[in-house]
Parts: sequence; structure tokens; C-alpha cells
Amino acid sequence: MKNSIQKISIVGFGNVGFHLSKAFSERGILVSHIYSTQKGNSNFPNDAIIVDDLASLPNDQLVLICVPDDAIASVIDQIPSSCPVAYTSGSVNLNCLPHREKIGVFYPLQTFSKNASLNVFEIPFFIEGNNQSFAQELFDLAWKISRKVNFANSEDRGNLHIAAVFVNNFTNHLNYIAQNYLEEKNLDFNHLKPLLEETVKKLEIVSPKEAQTGPARRGDLKIIEEHLSKLSGDTKEIYQTITNSILASYKHEKL
Amino acid sequence: MKNSIQKISIVGFGNVGFHLSKAFSERGILVSHIYSTQKGNSNFPNDAIIVDDLASLPNDQLVLICVPDDAIASVIDQIPSSCPVAYTSGSVNLNCLPHREKIGVFYPLQTFSKNASLNVFEIPFFIEGNNQSFAQELFDLAWKISRKVNFANSEDRGNLHIAAVFVNNFTNHLNYIAQNYLEEKNLDFNHLKPLLEETVKKLEIVSPKEAQTGPARRGDLKIIEEHLSKLSGDTKEIYQTITNSILASYKHEKL
Repeated sequence: MKNSIQKISIVGFGNVGFHLSKAFSERGILVSHIYSTQKGNSNFPNDAIIVDDLASLPNDQLVLICVPDDAIASVIDQIPSSCPVAYTSGSVNLNCLPHREKIGVFYPLQTFSKNASLNVFEIPFFIEGNNQSFAQELFDLAWKISRKVNFANSEDRGNLHIAAVFVNNFTNHLNYIAQNYLEEKNLDFNHLKPLLEETVKKLEIVSPKEAQTGPARRGDLKIIEEHLSKLSGDTKEIYQTITNSILASYKHEKL
Repeated sequence: MKNSIQKISIVGFGNVGFHLSKAFSERGILVSHIYSTQKGNSNFPNDAIIVDDLASLPNDQLVLICVPDDAIASVIDQIPSSCPVAYTSGSVNLNCLPHREKIGVFYPLQTFSKNASLNVFEIPFFIEGNNQSFAQELFDLAWKISRKVNFANSEDRGNLHIAAVFVNNFTNHLNYIAQNYLEEKNLDFNHLKPLLEETVKKLEIVSPKEAQTGPARRGDLKIIEEHLSKLSGDTKEIYQTITNSILASYKHEKL
């Protein structure tokens, strides 16, 4: 492919940097330089040069920025001005960053943890660029590691990120609450694993609205009151807030 | 096996009654009678007699009651007094029901929908009985259709049910909200399916607390405020309540 990106630098070797670097290596794209404040991380690719100065990244080579949102602007300022840059954030608007000749977004809509292996090929990527040809280069790069690549402007990407917070971060927190609640009662969270799996599996064939069951779905205020009487603090507040929202969705009277 | 239950009646042919009846039939336990107010449901097992009067259920034969919580007591009152009975509710306390010689609980910790096929063998069952030998009979019956059978008293079962509401009903509602939000913005909920799957898969290897990522996990109040500015109504309230709870769990300052 003409002009296709064969070599990149990565800034930040947290969960996202680690998984993307691995995916690129596996697909024959050389991660030649990594900027990281970590020393001697055993997960660094063998053939990468680890640098501790952003200004020393190779000129003219794409830099993929995998750092927390509030660090992106200052990282960009320190990268050689000849380098095209792209960042992996869901929320940061392209227009809010320092101007570059080539700047874009390479957003993987997924939750990354070092300990969990991931099939990057199934991750939806959302691509944006400050000009069309650079956006296309980033698209083609993403296409080498994923079969779910899309263009999206900053607004759509921000909205996808909000929905992702509900689906991932908040769901995860509900599991955290359920686990804590059961542990306080000396009960085993593993009993809930088949239910959790089915919760997701069901959504392959029915919509969340049709999939709903439980006391709030049925408008069973007696059971809801009984549950609330056993809860306290954040847990009670979350129970109440979500239950009221479910009751309203099915046109039952709220608590 | 001596005294093992070979034949049962089922009351209520909603989602639970349907799936349990199917599982029993598949394991050679005859569902000889079904009480249902539905007429000519094509899912009724071929060999079952459908009755519309609880008093006509066969004497001395176990009746499994699969009706909403608030209907259980009145159903029990109408069943011949010679019949042992068991019900499938997570929340109803055994002591709050009419006295019977043999009464017990046969609680499957799972979400049931007619349209979603289920591997009943992986569903955890929680068994309770008003006497030990009847509890054992119910345990042995559950053991024929599941490999995850436990005894649990009404209090433990109620607590499992509360945790299940968080893991299933509330998670499902978060997906409902995410879907609505994306549809309003003309974006496709399917983009989030890989994330949702990974959310659950991750919990096989790390705890929910370790698995957490996202703005609240990082204490990124700027992104959180930006998200809140785009939300309204129940959606905003849920975002705020859960985010505050995550911030507190990771000892960040609340909103």
C-alpha cells in the first residue's frame, strides 16, 4: 500500500499503550520507539528503543499518544514538530489541542487492563484527522489491527465515550457493589457469575428494554422497599436512583 | 434413588415456569400438570395436562410455584393440602407463607426470558425447606437439572437476590440508557457490544475493583463535568450517583 505507515512511536505504556503496541508488533508494524517514565518494564517490545525525552522521538514518524486526557496537550508540545501525532482518547476534542500539520484521533472503544488479554481485531476504532488524507492514513493503520474501523468526529466520539462509561465503568461498579455486599454477608460473589454472563448474552438477541426482569420491571414496590431497608449509603442511593429510572421506563409509579 | 421426585406439577408458565419445565422434561422428570391462565400456549409440554383450577392438581405430588412474589401465598392456599409445595422466588421469606406440612424454596439465580435459550445446568439453585428431609428432596431434584445446587436460608437468599438486582437488572438498565443515548445521537449501540462483553470477561480474571477504568477511576473531574453537561433527567442523575460512588471507592474527592 502506498504511503502506508510501517513504523511508529508510542508515548505512554499504560494499559492502552501496552495492548496497541502488542497488536502492531503482531501485525508487522514496527514500534521503533516508546516514551515511558517506567524503567525496565518487562513488557516493552524487544526491538523498541525506550526514550525518556519526547524531543528525541524520530522526526517525521507517527507518534501515537496513549496518555491520560489531561496530559495530551503538553505531550504534543514536546514532540518534534515534523511528527504526525494521534491520540487515543474518547473525550478530548481535536480542536482543543495545539495546532500541528498532521494531528488526529485513534480511539479504541474498549476497556484495557494489562492482565486481561484482548482480541484487538474485534475492537471498534474511531478515527479522526485534521485533514482527510491523514485521517485516511490513520484509518488504514487501524485497519491492520482491527476489522471494526470507523471515522467519527469529536462530537460523535465524545458521545460514544459517554455511553461507554455507562456500559463499562458503571456496570463494573455495580459488580463491585454486589461483591462487597455479598462479602459483608459471607456469601460468594461467584454465585452471580452465570447471571452476569447471561445478562450480556441475552442482549445478543433481545434489546435491553425487552431483556429487563426483576422487582422494578414488575413494579413490585413491596420487594423494593424491603431491599432498600437492608441497604445504606452509596449502595442504597444507587439502588433508589436506578430503580426509579426503571419504574419510570415501564410507566410504573416511582418510589 | 429412593423417594426421589419423578413427577411434578408446575403453577405459572411465565419465563421461569417455561424454562424449568423444559429442563425437567429433558432430564426425565415428568411435568404431569401445569396450572396456567394462558390457553393453548404452543410451548406447553405435549404430555402435560393443563388445568385452570389449582384445587384439581394431583394429591401428594410436588407443586412447583413459578408465579410473581405477591401471588405465592394465595396460590398456596388453593393447592390441595396433601401436596408438598416449593416456590422459585428470591425474596419471599419461608416464614411469611401459609403453614404446610412440606413447604420449601427452589430458587434459580438467573434471569429468564422465553426468547433466550438457557443452559439450566449452569444455573445456581438455592434450596430451603421447612424440614430437613424435604429440603434434601428438593436439593436432589435441583441436582438433576443443575450442577450448582446449594442450601440457603431465607436471609441469605434475600441477600443474593439484592446482589442479583445490581448485577442483572441495574446493568441491563445501564445498557438501556446507553442505547437510548446513542439512538438520540444517531449512533449505533452495536459499537458497544465488544466493550460490554469484555466488561464481563475481565471479571473472570480480575476483581471489579481492579478492573475499573475511566474518568471516575482516574478522578478526572474535567471530563466528568463535560459528560454531565451533556446529560439530563434520570440519565444525568444516574451518572452523578454512580460516579460519586466510584470516586469515593478510589478515595478521590466527590463532585
